[in-house]
Amino acid sequence: MDISAESLELHKQLKGKLEVVSRCPIQTQKDLSLAYTPGVAAPCLEIQKDPSLSFALTRRQNMVAVITDGSAVLGLGNIGPLAGMPVMEGKCVLFKEFAGVDAFPICLDTQDVDEMVKTIALISKSFGGINLEDISAPRCFEVERRLKELCDIPVFHDDQHGTAVVITAALTNALKVVGKKKEDVTIVINGIGAAGGAAARLLSDWGAGDLILCDKDGILRAGDPKLAPHHAELAGMTNKHRREGLLADALRGADVFIGVSRPGLVTGEMVETMARDPIILSMANPVPEIMPDVAKAHGAAVVGTGRSDFPNQINNVLVFPGLFKGALSCGAVQITEGMKYAAAKALADMVDEPTADRILPSPLDRSAAQAVADAVAAEARRAGIARF
Amino acid sequence: MDISAESLELHKQLKGKLEVVSRCPIQTQKDLSLAYTPGVAAPCLEIQKDPSLSFALTRRQNMVAVITDGSAVLGLGNIGPLAGMPVMEGKCVLFKEFAGVDAFPICLDTQDVDEMVKTIALISKSFGGINLEDISAPRCFEVERRLKELCDIPVFHDDQHGTAVVITAALTNALKVVGKKKEDVTIVINGIGAAGGAAARLLSDWGAGDLILCDKDGILRAGDPKLAPHHAELAGMTNKHRREGLLADALRGADVFIGVSRPGLVTGEMVETMARDPIILSMANPVPEIMPDVAKAHGAAVVGTGRSDFPNQINNVLVFPGLFKGALSCGAVQITEGMKYAAAKALADMVDEPTADRILPSPLDRSAAQAVADAVAAEARRAGIARF
Repeated sequence: MDISAESLELHKQLKGKLEVVSRCPIQTQKDLSLAYTPGVAAPCLEIQKDPSLSFALTRRQNMVAVITDGSAVLGLGNIGPLAGMPVMEGKCVLFKEFAGVDAFPICLDTQDVDEMVKTIALISKSFGGINLEDISAPRCFEVERRLKELCDIPVFHDDQHGTAVVITAALTNALKVVGKKKEDVTIVINGIGAAGGAAARLLSDWGAGDLILCDKDGILRAGDPKLAPHHAELAGMTNKHRREGLLADALRGADVFIGVSRPGLVTGEMVETMARDPIILSMANPVPEIMPDVAKAHGAAVVGTGRSDFPNQINNVLVFPGLFKGALSCGAVQITEGMKYAAAKALADMVDEPTADRILPSPLDRSAAQAVADAVAAEARRAGIARF
Repeated sequence: MDISAESLELHKQLKGKLEVVSRCPIQTQKDLSLAYTPGVAAPCLEIQKDPSLSFALTRRQNMVAVITDGSAVLGLGNIGPLAGMPVMEGKCVLFKEFAGVDAFPICLDTQDVDEMVKTIALISKSFGGINLEDISAPRCFEVERRLKELCDIPVFHDDQHGTAVVITAALTNALKVVGKKKEDVTIVINGIGAAGGAAARLLSDWGAGDLILCDKDGILRAGDPKLAPHHAELAGMTNKHRREGLLADALRGADVFIGVSRPGLVTGEMVETMARDPIILSMANPVPEIMPDVAKAHGAAVVGTGRSDFPNQINNVLVFPGLFKGALSCGAVQITEGMKYAAAKALADMVDEPTADRILPSPLDRSAAQAVADAVAAEARRAGIARF
């Protein structure tokens, strides 16, 4: 049985990958009167007096909403809210399995930005954090930006920032392996959607030497009147030397390729035109922009992909469970750039001596989430945005 | 320690009465690829082809949303969404403990009817049913009515209909005890909010002889220009003999008193003016309209209250877990009047030989939920509104 058939069978058997359970057994009349009426009036009144107690007295302190509109689910595209649910349940499973964070999936029956923002804001007080998921660009940018203004809990679009953080961690250690400094390298990012754009911003603020962003029409260049607004903004902060052309032109002399685009776009010949010891983080999934063995045969020094059957799997499951765990553990009111860098550094630091075949911990390494959580909570406290 | 202090302590210790858990352990790379990418694409695509599979392939088939706006929480009034959460969590605990139904609490940060309806409709496809809770009258009527039109899953305002169903069950058996027929009795309902109004409608359709509804301004009478619209509608379907006056006037000669109002409004003297063998279902909580010992001393034949320290506790925990379990088990697209009567009859039938001290099963009797569920699912199938 192939993986698709086996997964379908598993889903039929499980009848839901999640379950809501009671932490409060009800056997006696007294149990009932403590968990429900009349006793439950006491915690209600405490929260009414001090709303911050909603974290201490309800599950809010450990509860994340995983929210999609079904517009960009996996590589499947706009399959809608009902069909997106198995992915959202899966995401919630990962939150719980890797970090003990309770997560609940909500698929919105709208793809209108105003309706999405309004709906999410109106349910946000039932949660300690909001993980936006599989929302297509450029709508995802506005949804996140507006929700961050409206909500006093972390709002985090994982496709953007989870990916950007794990890329930053992978690149940190890959650069150690080849003995280059971030300030000196030129990084090409191909595919400037949610993930590529967020990676560009995070790596730019991080201090990367230069970034060259490519989309299907080639290199993004400031002043190009054909650019969409979200691409124009990115063009303004990248491509210092105003390079022009297509992906092949961008890669000439570059130190790093980051692919969040489509299978097979990079050839061995293109790798050969890069600077010495090129780093290839090729994350189109399941088929990368260039297969690791091809990249290595043409001189790549370090290769990472999204796949589990090659070394250096770059998977944001290393990021989001721990990031939210850390934010929830201290009641952070938002997730800052500093918290993202703290997460990336904690993740990179988990590998004592990075090698070409080991730049990140395994996605199944459960200690990653705690390391990330500790670093994120420490940074939130340092920045003064922790409630407790 | 009194019950309030003890409940507060319990809430501090529990840190949430609910938890979201994974039904899908992730230990290996293969587990990950079945529960999440790439395998999860298979159930997504199946649902995209046939949206009704969202029930079979996700937790939707057993998942109810418990939704409030915090406007009428217990007897505490309008305490808002954050302070309402302990009650909603408690309600969800009861769903799980008594019927194995997963329930998730959502407290809306709005009390605007349009916003509530829109928000709930837009998240409804993530659930198999919607239990509205603790929403003040008359807004609760419009919220429910509009959602029933918009959603293809059961929408049920428990404060209205759960209470109406358990009252109908209690009354069914109380009438057996005193040897009266429903067609012959005059029933006074005091307190015409969410619960009283719904009880009036359900008992009226059930075929009760006459109903006299009282609110704080006295008996509702058709044609009274001072009545609010939702009261005017009820007045039109009750009070056949156009009686006037206050509660004391209504009770004179009546067979049944149903109180969903305030403590102490009924005196022993008022009970003495009722017809022979009066039935008193006095559900103001925790202090009823008349205490059972007082009512009995003045001639009441059967007395029920919301309290656990007297016989005949009338508690809608006997209704909502089983009602939703039955509706979910057959994929009912709504909860009909027929399903409510089926629930009431199943509940009444659980008591083989009703006596003055036993008209209902104990609220802690876990077999009630299954009996109600079976009857409700059978009725949904009979009515042709079951998906499976």
